Amino acid sequence: MGKVTSEISMSLDGFITDPNASAGSPLEGNDPGRLHDWRFDAKTETDTAIVEIYASTGAVLLGKRMFDVGFEPWGDPPPFRMPVFVVTHGAREPLPMQGGTTYTFVTDGIEAALELARAAAGDKNVGIWGGANLMRQYLKAGLLDEMQIHLIPLLLGGGVRLFEDLDPEGIELRRTSLIETPGATHFRFEV
Amino acid sequence: MGKVTSEISMSLDGFITDPNASAGSPLEGNDPGRLHDWRFDAKTETDTAIVEIYASTGAVLLGKRMFDVGFEPWGDPPPFRMPVFVVTHGAREPLPMQGGTTYTFVTDGIEAALELARAAAGDKNVGIWGGANLMRQYLKAGLLDEMQIHLIPLLLGGGVRLFEDLDPEGIELRRTSLIETPGATHFRFEV
Repeated sequence: MGKVTSEISMSLDGFITDPNASAGSPLEGNDPGRLHDWRFDAKTETDTAIVEIYASTGAVLLGKRMFDVGFEPWGDPPPFRMPVFVVTHGAREPLPMQGGTTYTFVTDGIEAALELARAAAGDKNVGIWGGANLMRQYLKAGLLDEMQIHLIPLLLGGGVRLFEDLDPEGIELRRTSLIETPGATHFRFEV
Repeated sequence: MGKVTSEISMSLDGFITDPNASAGSPLEGNDPGRLHDWRFDAKTETDTAIVEIYASTGAVLLGKRMFDVGFEPWGDPPPFRMPVFVVTHGAREPLPMQGGTTYTFVTDGIEAALELARAAAGDKNVGIWGGANLMRQYLKAGLLDEMQIHLIPLLLGGGVRLFEDLDPEGIELRRTSLIETPGATHFRFEV
């Protein structure tokens, strides 16, 4: 069985979205896309290797807001190319896309969603790829094995914080890897 | 002339004090002292070298709250062993301590305090050693040359945030060094 691992880019001041992010333009605002430059314009061979770690992921969990914000820009085929489970309150038929991505909407909580994702992932990892709220829910529930944080030397001043309203009681982190590239510092923590 | 450089330990979730920090017990609470373990129990040779960088500092700037919180635990002689300028609203006579530290209280703003600190530091650096609010004031005013952040793999869940209510317009950071030790990840940013 694979691990349950979260993966996100965070500014030095703790934000994972730009202050002006909104549905359909998740990366726009004062600093369009600068949280994610390391994956694109500023990408190095090391960054590529880090992105390729995603090949070890067999299913993805997303929060509803993240899905709403991302759905349009991800397009069709979406970049996932694997089953994606969206944790939501609103029941909805599964939405098959091109290229191997199917969005499945799970309404009975994070544990049920994780069970489905584990079954779909087989031996591979389950990736929790956003948003912050969903990551915190899995972290609090003790269901997260590993957090990957790409720390970007950038101050955003506003937006969605990765860590907010979190009671850290009982949560211990151990830094297991740290890789430095020009655009980011890639941390991996065992929870 | 030396640089103006800030230096602080921050948890992964962005806090520089424990949720229960208070005057006289700045490090107590749920995780007493864990933000600063890297300087003490978990210290390695590399951490020692980083701490010794303080030898390049000729004068220190502190915020009033930081001074109030730290005054008792720092004791006499305080650890600074150099002139310390406290930015405050309340006028007060200078307070000479043992071992080379004199606390001087500056009531006419951060620029005036910096001028005094520069004069006292000579060729050495001026260190802004807390709290978060004072660092942000110097950062906003464009008076900070370098930020050192010791990032600690720890979630505190509350306390004072280093980055809060900060308009980052016009502030660019460049990561100039990154050193990994067991207890911390030591970042240095050019502003």
